[in-house]
Amino acid sequence: MATSELILKDQFVKFVGIELLDAGDGMARAQLKIEEYHLNGLGIAQGGAIFTLADYAFAAAANSHEQVAVTLNSSIAFMRPVGKGVLTAVCREIARNRRTAFYTVDVLDESGETVALFNGTAYLKSIDKG
Amino acid sequence: MATSELILKDQFVKFVGIELLDAGDGMARAQLKIEEYHLNGLGIAQGGAIFTLADYAFAAAANSHEQVAVTLNSSIAFMRPVGKGVLTAVCREIARNRRTAFYTVDVLDESGETVALFNGTAYLKSIDKG
Amino acid sequence: MATSELILKDQFVKFVGIELLDAGDGMARAQLKIEEYHLNGLGIAQGGAIFTLADYAFAAAANSHEQVAVTLNSSIAFMRPVGKGVLTAVCREIARNRRTAFYTVDVLDESGETVALFNGTAYLKSIDKG
Amino acid sequence: MATSELILKDQFVKFVGIELLDAGDGMARAQLKIEEYHLNGLGIAQGGAIFTLADYAFAAAANSHEQVAVTLNSSIAFMRPVGKGVLTAVCREIARNRRTAFYTVDVLDESGETVALFNGTAYLKSIDKG
Repeated sequence: MATSELILKDQFVKFVGIELLDAGDGMARAQLKIEEYHLNGLGIAQGGAIFTLADYAFAAAANSHEQVAVTLNSSIAFMRPVGKGVLTAVCREIARNRRTAFYTVDVLDESGETVALFNGTAYLKSIDKG
Repeated sequence: MATSELILKDQFVKFVGIELLDAGDGMARAQLKIEEYHLNGLGIAQGGAIFTLADYAFAAAANSHEQVAVTLNSSIAFMRPVGKGVLTAVCREIARNRRTAFYTVDVLDESGETVALFNGTAYLKSIDKG
Repeated sequence: MATSELILKDQFVKFVGIELLDAGDGMARAQLKIEEYHLNGLGIAQGGAIFTLADYAFAAAANSHEQVAVTLNSSIAFMRPVGKGVLTAVCREIARNRRTAFYTVDVLDESGETVALFNGTAYLKSIDKG
Repeated sequence: MATSELILKDQFVKFVGIELLDAGDGMARAQLKIEEYHLNGLGIAQGGAIFTLADYAFAAAANSHEQVAVTLNSSIAFMRPVGKGVLTAVCREIARNRRTAFYTVDVLDESGETVALFNGTAYLKSIDKG
């Protein structure tokens, strides 16, 4: 509960227009409808907007357990330019240890093709000591 | 000129509040004043906002030559949480080949401490064939 | 044919003890039986040995088409320490464009658990001009 | 002392022919003389050999303090092919927190040019509880 509240209180994703679809048990999905203000100078969705979408699905998945998770690092590869439509980020947990956990996020366009692939590593805080 | 226009026409960075300070010869600097809407649920600058800042400095540096550069992939590590003040992203070129180029971006807080470290790889389009 | 020859002529993977199981159509599998000389000071398979295994599956998959592929960059996350047994790297192609291609490699232990996750980006050389 | 012993007991780096030059206070340098058995099918130093060199400098730097450090993940970009000579990996600490630390490694050829750039994140074990 506490951790999902954390996710729902994220102001930047609201500002960007990202919506959490669902989260639980190490998985999460989030969505972004591409608008004019998400575009870069080439007229395609800016890398930062796509990263923010993927990162939010990652954060929601990583915080779907009882520990607070913070991002250590992440990488993203951009495979296909996309200029319109709805993007969906689908995150799944690859492994979770006592203090660290690993996630992969596929960012898909409306036809289900992978637009970007994101990998994230989270640090899991101690339950009692914060 | 054409490539710097590309950079200046980026709508998402304007939306996020990022400003390009300077760019040229494989280097660039960009800045973001952290506002309430940049924060995540923990009250610190959201990873996506910091990524977008770093990515923009990277794009400006990569496009400071005559070829159009597009991002292939990038990675970012978050070292220190930061909740207010001005962040500055400083990008430098590590290497540039005929078709690919490599950049590192330091994201610094006001005291000059590294908040995040970003690495990006760009694909350089052919000058004539686009 | 030419590209698979490239893969088979790799001297370092032979030295390390890595064997290619199969490769074709953007996929590949390689294997490493962990020996004493693969261990680090903690008595577990050294990160470099696991990386080399994953990287070889990646190279074999990336070179399974008609173009010569060279590595631009890659990332690896280590999820579980492993000290003995046979490791299998399974590579699949996420996307392939005219000049770049993207791959993910799972490194599995004998029970099929993910030991490490590798992502690689390849640059594809022009067919005629090398 | 205990941690540097860990580094010196690494069997894989000995097998590959890597030598630690020095380590201390979050920094380290390691070296590899390229031999025939380090080459890939293109006749250049194999990515896995270069990764292992960089990773060893990283491990030595991360273990130069009192805590045992284990690798969470790392990324490497290959900028220039190199077929002979001595490679030197120079690692420096970017940031160190209570449980995590961040490092960058430059892999240089004999003329001091960057051949590869490596970034690594380490998890620092608790001093008492192992």
